[in-house]
Amino acid sequence: MDSNGSSRRRFLRQTAALAGVAAGAGLAARGQSASAQAQQAEAPKHVFREPPRRGARYSLDHLTHYTPLQDYSGIITPAPVHFVQQHSSEFPEIDAAQHRLTIHGMVDRPSSPASHNAQNSQNPNLGLPIQYIHGMASCSEWSGVPLSVLLNEAGVQKGASWLVSEGGDQGKFSHTVPLGKAMDDCFVAYGQNGESLRIEQGYPIRLLVPGWEGPFNVKYLKHIKVVDQPYNTWNESMNHSVSRRDLGDKARWYHFQWAAKSVITRPSAGMEMRKGYVQITGLAWSGAGRITRVEVSTDGGKNWKDAKIQGPVHSKAHTRFTYDWAWDGQEAMLQSRCTDETGDVQPSLAELSQHWDIPFADWKKAEKPRAIHFNAIQPWKVARDGTISDGMFA
Amino acid sequence: MDSNGSSRRRFLRQTAALAGVAAGAGLAARGQSASAQAQQAEAPKHVFREPPRRGARYSLDHLTHYTPLQDYSGIITPAPVHFVQQHSSEFPEIDAAQHRLTIHGMVDRPSSPASHNAQNSQNPNLGLPIQYIHGMASCSEWSGVPLSVLLNEAGVQKGASWLVSEGGDQGKFSHTVPLGKAMDDCFVAYGQNGESLRIEQGYPIRLLVPGWEGPFNVKYLKHIKVVDQPYNTWNESMNHSVSRRDLGDKARWYHFQWAAKSVITRPSAGMEMRKGYVQITGLAWSGAGRITRVEVSTDGGKNWKDAKIQGPVHSKAHTRFTYDWAWDGQEAMLQSRCTDETGDVQPSLAELSQHWDIPFADWKKAEKPRAIHFNAIQPWKVARDGTISDGMFA
Repeated sequence: MDSNGSSRRRFLRQTAALAGVAAGAGLAARGQSASAQAQQAEAPKHVFREPPRRGARYSLDHLTHYTPLQDYSGIITPAPVHFVQQHSSEFPEIDAAQHRLTIHGMVDRPSSPASHNAQNSQNPNLGLPIQYIHGMASCSEWSGVPLSVLLNEAGVQKGASWLVSEGGDQGKFSHTVPLGKAMDDCFVAYGQNGESLRIEQGYPIRLLVPGWEGPFNVKYLKHIKVVDQPYNTWNESMNHSVSRRDLGDKARWYHFQWAAKSVITRPSAGMEMRKGYVQITGLAWSGAGRITRVEVSTDGGKNWKDAKIQGPVHSKAHTRFTYDWAWDGQEAMLQSRCTDETGDVQPSLAELSQHWDIPFADWKKAEKPRAIHFNAIQPWKVARDGTISDGMFA
Repeated sequence: MDSNGSSRRRFLRQTAALAGVAAGAGLAARGQSASAQAQQAEAPKHVFREPPRRGARYSLDHLTHYTPLQDYSGIITPAPVHFVQQHSSEFPEIDAAQHRLTIHGMVDRPSSPASHNAQNSQNPNLGLPIQYIHGMASCSEWSGVPLSVLLNEAGVQKGASWLVSEGGDQGKFSHTVPLGKAMDDCFVAYGQNGESLRIEQGYPIRLLVPGWEGPFNVKYLKHIKVVDQPYNTWNESMNHSVSRRDLGDKARWYHFQWAAKSVITRPSAGMEMRKGYVQITGLAWSGAGRITRVEVSTDGGKNWKDAKIQGPVHSKAHTRFTYDWAWDGQEAMLQSRCTDETGDVQPSLAELSQHWDIPFADWKKAEKPRAIHFNAIQPWKVARDGTISDGMFA
C-alpha cells in the first residue's frame, strides 16, 4: 500500500476497529442443540460454546468437527471448537478415578499406575482456599492493537506525559497510565485465548497494561485522553491506593508494576494429602519480565531447593513450576520463592512488613485479600493428618 | 526425596496418574445459576463453564470473581474463570458495531475509528469456508507427563523399536509410533488450555505426538504396548494412508510429520470486503519446528512480500502472521507461503502434484478435505465485487 499520511490514517482507523471484526465471529448461530440455544440466549454471542456436532461428516464412520480457523485471534484454539475426529460412534464415558494406563509388551516392568495424592477436599475449617487469597490474577493470550500505533497516529503533543482511559460502562471506570508505559507495551485488546473478549472482560475492547496491577486494564474502553499530569481519577485514589503510616496516613501510595510473586497452587489450603509422593506445583510471575528461578522449601524456609520451571516462559506472564516431594507424614510448611530477570527476589512477610512499614499484626486485620499489592511468600501448613491450612499468620 | 529404585517407581506410578488429579478440578459443583446447572447435566464435569457470580464480594460496590488457581494446569487461565472485578453494578451491553474508541486531549488528530473490513458473510455460492477445507488442525496448550519418563521407568527392552497405543473407546482406536519419536517429545496429556481434557478430546488422558499427523494422538489412552516392528493397525492402514500411483496403487504410503503449511484465515472464501485497507491474517505451522518466515502474495504468486510474524512463536505450534494491504478494487489472488527452521518451504499445488505424483485434475475429485496430508499454498480469489472464493483449482 502507499505510505502517504492520509492513507496511513485511514488504515489505522480501520486497524483500531478490528474489535468489530472479532465481534462478528460466527459459530454461535449455527447448528446447535436445544440446550445450547437456550444458553445462547443469555450468553455473550461472541463466545464459543458450541459442542461438537454430528452434522459434519465425511464418512459414515466418523464424527468430525472442523476448527473455525477464520473466527479466532491469536494462536490458541478455544477448547470448545478444537478439531474433533471421533472414530467410535459415541464418546466414551470414562470414570477418571478408575481409568488406568497400562504399559506392557517389551518392557521389564509392565505397569498400571494406580493412585494420586493431594485431593481437593476444600475443608472449610482449614481457612480460605488459595482462590480467595491470591485469585485476583489470571493469565490469558490477549490479541490487540499496540497503543503506540494509535498514539503515533493521533500525534501526541509536546509536554504530554499521561493518559486517562475511560470505559463505556455505567460507572465510567477511569484510570491513568504514564505515557512512557503506554508507548512501551500497552495495547488495546479485542481477543482473549482466541475468543473475542467476554462481556465480563470488557467486550468489545479493553486496555491491556502488561505487568501492572489490574485496575490499569480499563474495560469497555471508550476514551483515551492525553494529558500533561498524573490525574488522580476517583477509582484509583479511592479504591486502588493505600495509606502510608510514615506519612501520617494522609498521603496515599499508588501501585504500578507487580513485583516478583509466586504461590504453590497445589497442594494448598483446604486440600488433604497422604504420605508418599506429592507433586508440588504452582505459578510465579513478575511485572518486570521473565521468571528466572523458583525455589521451594518444605521446612518453613530453613532450606530451599530449585523447583523445575516448565516452559513456555513468557515475560510478564504466569510461569508454571513443579517440585517432586516425598512427604514423610510429619508436620511441614510449604513455601515457594521466585526471582525475576532483574534479580528481584520475592520477600518474606517479615521483609515486606519492614519495607512497607506495616506492622505484622496489621496484616491480619486487612479487609482485602492478599492478592492486592502483596507479594510475600505464602506458607502452607501441613498437619500430621495430611490436612493443609494457611500458614501465613501462623 | 530419596532416589532408590522402588521410591522412584512409586513416584512415577503416581506421576502418571495425575490425570486423575486434574479430573477432580472442581468449580463445576459450586454456586451456579439454574441455567448453568441445567447445562452442566449434559456437559463434561471437568470443563469450566461457570459464569461470574455475584456471591463473592469484598465490598458493596464490587462484583468479584476469583481465579481458581488451584484447579487448572499449565499457564493459561480458561476464559470462563478468568479473574473479574466489576466496578459497575451491571455488565454493560455494548453493540460492538457501534462502539468507538476516541483518542483526544493533547493530540494533533483526535480520532474515533469508524469502519472495519472483510466481513464474514459466508456466502454459500463462494464455496466451502476455510473451516471445512483446512480446519482439521488446532493448537492448544497441552499439559502432561513425558512419555520418556514412563517408558524409562517401565524399562524398554533391547530390540524394541515401536509402540502401539490403544484407546479405551468402544472401537479401541489404535495407532503406532516409532520409539525414537516417543522418547523425543511425546507425552501423555491430561490438560488442555488449563482445563482437563474435554470428553471429545480424549478425557481423561490422550497421547500427544507433537508435529505429527492427527491420528497419532490416541484419545482415551489405555494401553501402550512396546513392540519390535511397525505394526499396521487397522485404523492407520485403512483410514490414514494413501495409494501411490507409481507403485500401481497396491502399496500404501504412511504419513508422519507435518510439512510446512500456512493458510490465510482472513479474508478467506465466503467473506466479502470493501476497497481500502484490509489486514490479511493467517496461521502457519510445521512439524519440524519453528516457523521462521511467512510471505504473502496478492497477485497470484508473481510477487511475494514478507508478512509480519506475531509472537509468541513456538515449535510445532500455530504461528500467527499479518500483512497490511490496501485493496484497489481489482481482481486479486491472495496466497501465503511459509518457511520453517529447517528451511522447508511450503510448495505450490503444482510442486506438490509433481512430488506426490498425483495429477492436478485428480485433486478436485478427492473425497477428503485438503486438511489431510496436504500442505500446498492456498489461493483465495478476490472478485471485483469484493467477494472471496476458493482459488485452489480456479
